[in-house]
Amino acid sequence: MADQPNHPLEEVTLSTETVYEGKIITLQLEEVRLPNGQTARREIVRHPGAVGILAVHGDRMLVVEQYRKPLGKSQVEIPAGKLEPGEDPREAARRELEEETGYACGKLRHLLSFYTSPGFADEILHLYVADDLLPGTARPDEDEFLECRAITFEQARQYIREGRISDAKTITAVYAWQARRLTGEF
Amino acid sequence: MADQPNHPLEEVTLSTETVYEGKIITLQLEEVRLPNGQTARREIVRHPGAVGILAVHGDRMLVVEQYRKPLGKSQVEIPAGKLEPGEDPREAARRELEEETGYACGKLRHLLSFYTSPGFADEILHLYVADDLLPGTARPDEDEFLECRAITFEQARQYIREGRISDAKTITAVYAWQARRLTGEF
Repeated sequence: MADQPNHPLEEVTLSTETVYEGKIITLQLEEVRLPNGQTARREIVRHPGAVGILAVHGDRMLVVEQYRKPLGKSQVEIPAGKLEPGEDPREAARRELEEETGYACGKLRHLLSFYTSPGFADEILHLYVADDLLPGTARPDEDEFLECRAITFEQARQYIREGRISDAKTITAVYAWQARRLTGEF
Repeated sequence: MADQPNHPLEEVTLSTETVYEGKIITLQLEEVRLPNGQTARREIVRHPGAVGILAVHGDRMLVVEQYRKPLGKSQVEIPAGKLEPGEDPREAARRELEEETGYACGKLRHLLSFYTSPGFADEILHLYVADDLLPGTARPDEDEFLECRAITFEQARQYIREGRISDAKTITAVYAWQARRLTGEF
């Protein structure tokens, strides 16, 4: 491991302590050397990464409503889920779409990938646009309870304004898809 | 505390254990009763919330480059920071903009608020658009090292495509602002 930073802003790890290892996240504390030579402690949540799917049918998109325990309320979101160990994000997107909505898709395109909260977590979220939907049967995880339906993009934008849609992946998917369609990229 | 769920999807907390309490985040494990009567464990990161500021000057926006230890690399982002205890998000936005860039703003408008990762964290991020910028002197936190500059919105969209901008708040700010300007909301 390099003792010298490679970048003028780099923070060099001096020690790492794993505080918690769970089903979804791992919490680590890292002692780092700052660019000015001082030290600081960073709290870092390690996450396997996740996928979100904007499943499009004409002027409608599929959403699922589910209870989000961290928020203490239910939310309307695009279908999504975390990556299984070693799983390709594209395969995970097809799997989660089928599990949560029952739909298979003929066409799957990468929209963009982003970090949800780079100040304290390494979670990356890969967004895909799914077209050519084929209905089937939903098979959610045993601890997962959700309601699937289709809403128009105009409804989605209204839900965003009202706060019924309020998570990073769904808002990013709706706006990024709209922006890229305007520039002819999608 | 209600024993009966208020919503058909609701998960009722049976017990809470605090595993870690840090400077920025708290990690809790909650035992919950699912809608089907079974129990499950939820890993929940508690976070004080944060603000991000899209500071606009003509066709340019202010960005800061800083090293993100969870990612092991530096990133280009809009100015941002977490809320101090009891702090009003709007005041936090003015404070963080001045601390990180040196600029004060004459005008500050709420763009939207979103949850960064509702599957495991309660972090909410409040996005603001700042106009009428007045230059001053940056005063970053003592463990914060960053470089501020202005880029055009076209550059920002290019950075997003290239992955140099890859965090939820910056991508959401750029695309949501673009979308809302098109509809005349901004």
